[in-house]
Amino acid sequence: MQNLGEFDLIQRYFDWPKLGPWSSQGVGDDCALIDIGTSRIAVTTDMLIEGTHFFENTSAYDLGHKSLAVNLSDLAAAAATPRAFFLSIAVPKSDPDWMNEFQKGLFGLAKRFGVSLLGGDTVRSVDGKITVSITALGELPAGTGLTRSGARVDDDIWVSGSLGGAYAAVQVRYGKWKLSTESYRRASERLDRPEPRNRLGEKLLKIANACCDISDGLLQDIGHIMKRSGRSCELTYEAIPQDASLNALALENRKKALLAGGDDYELLWTAPRDAREAIATISAELRLPITRIGRVVESEEDTASIRVLSRETLLDTGAYRGFDHFSDHENQR
Amino acid sequence: MQNLGEFDLIQRYFDWPKLGPWSSQGVGDDCALIDIGTSRIAVTTDMLIEGTHFFENTSAYDLGHKSLAVNLSDLAAAAATPRAFFLSIAVPKSDPDWMNEFQKGLFGLAKRFGVSLLGGDTVRSVDGKITVSITALGELPAGTGLTRSGARVDDDIWVSGSLGGAYAAVQVRYGKWKLSTESYRRASERLDRPEPRNRLGEKLLKIANACCDISDGLLQDIGHIMKRSGRSCELTYEAIPQDASLNALALENRKKALLAGGDDYELLWTAPRDAREAIATISAELRLPITRIGRVVESEEDTASIRVLSRETLLDTGAYRGFDHFSDHENQR
Repeated sequence: MQNLGEFDLIQRYFDWPKLGPWSSQGVGDDCALIDIGTSRIAVTTDMLIEGTHFFENTSAYDLGHKSLAVNLSDLAAAAATPRAFFLSIAVPKSDPDWMNEFQKGLFGLAKRFGVSLLGGDTVRSVDGKITVSITALGELPAGTGLTRSGARVDDDIWVSGSLGGAYAAVQVRYGKWKLSTESYRRASERLDRPEPRNRLGEKLLKIANACCDISDGLLQDIGHIMKRSGRSCELTYEAIPQDASLNALALENRKKALLAGGDDYELLWTAPRDAREAIATISAELRLPITRIGRVVESEEDTASIRVLSRETLLDTGAYRGFDHFSDHENQR
Repeated sequence: MQNLGEFDLIQRYFDWPKLGPWSSQGVGDDCALIDIGTSRIAVTTDMLIEGTHFFENTSAYDLGHKSLAVNLSDLAAAAATPRAFFLSIAVPKSDPDWMNEFQKGLFGLAKRFGVSLLGGDTVRSVDGKITVSITALGELPAGTGLTRSGARVDDDIWVSGSLGGAYAAVQVRYGKWKLSTESYRRASERLDRPEPRNRLGEKLLKIANACCDISDGLLQDIGHIMKRSGRSCELTYEAIPQDASLNALALENRKKALLAGGDDYELLWTAPRDAREAIATISAELRLPITRIGRVVESEEDTASIRVLSRETLLDTGAYRGFDHFSDHENQR
């Protein structure tokens, strides 16, 4: 539910009319937020296709992990506690070894986050390709939940962990970039086994004004927040936390990985200045680096703009819009 | 979430451990039934793949209709009122005409049942095939909901509408059977635009003891109820309501369509004898034929058996187990 291009496609043709008594606060957000009786749930769905979202030689274990991780990450962005998920999977044949490994990767993560598989559908794919579709449900205190639309002027902009590792691993697998064995191992870990930031998300519920996860690339994802919040922002390029696997890369490649690289599944949020101490405490508690990378500013005219400043100079970031399945300029995956 | 073979595959590798505070009353049922606060929701998910679940030349309108219909049908089987759905769709390219037609088919049905699209994911398929995955949510009064496991000895067995039409249309499209133009039109309507029986399902909530929808074929689906209820049953072959499109077919083909033909999405349920009058009233109110086709009996030994009697003779029905993606004897779709 994240990509701008993807969302625009659904937005264009489906336009989300209210057809019954249920509605969502968060349409176009990482999750739908739905009130049921006196409770609120968050729901998200993501489909992963072999050759589009993962390489053909991805291990079954990693695919099981990642399929669930990307959905838990959407729940994290809404600050919802993961509770249940539903799995639909298309596989070419019934292969016990593959299914066992897939199950291990899936349940390994599910156990750690206390989220139960409550339903599913297994179908046979005709073309030999694997498709995994997961819908995850989370729980929220009534009336709460983070969306992309709450950013306020003068909010700090924060990001968890480090960025760019997953993108670097993709480039190595395409034979475009080279990394040392150790850097590649580290980058691959980011790509294949992303760690959803649900504990962080839950702690941000009362602190952040707007939040999303970074699945499409920093610039594209911060753009989602700014567009939906009707704000603009300034980022400090040097502040963006860079994954250690990028250290030996050429400057231009690092820039691309940091600004346009998706698939890191870190959280990106805005919070008022007076939350800085609380955020430092959360970072220490979770032993997770959290970095302030910019601030929200008033939008001139009506368009959300993102200015990236490097040593006081404005960077030209037009080439780093990030990943979009349906745009032509960035379709290498 | 219906097929025995499909479910067995998931069952075998995933075994549904309780990993967190949420659980489901209905694992292995048409829907998961989940208590959230003082409310109960039903959730189901189904994936449809081009070439496996629908023909390549299926119209976008019909695919939109059917993708949602099969999910609403699962909610009907649980007696849940449809409220929301989530759509993931993989398409080879962004084709406005196709998307518009798909949207019309999808929303045409969604409007009639008051169910809103609250989230989605559009992705690009690499191989040119279309995959649709929908997760639907319904609402139930606290503590209620129909499952497959409540059938009692001496219950009547009931089915809505008529059976076999969808299967006949499939056989014609494979060039195996021939139907008159009018019969084929009728059969195609059953295959391409199944009408989910949600109004019936809601009325059965207080009447039926066990319920499912017929997606895999009568014998396979009644087998699900019997297996999960620990009962056996006797069906009267001549009582099974036959779709009018089958009238001119050879006896053997009709038998196959009635007993093994899936995709009709009628409801199949058991209810105590004293509900006969109430069921007749429902049939009249909904202007929907409802037929009593058998009764539940005590299981001898521990295995659920299904006996189909024709003019007092026991039919050999071993060949009519129904559709299973992963079994070899019935994989023509």
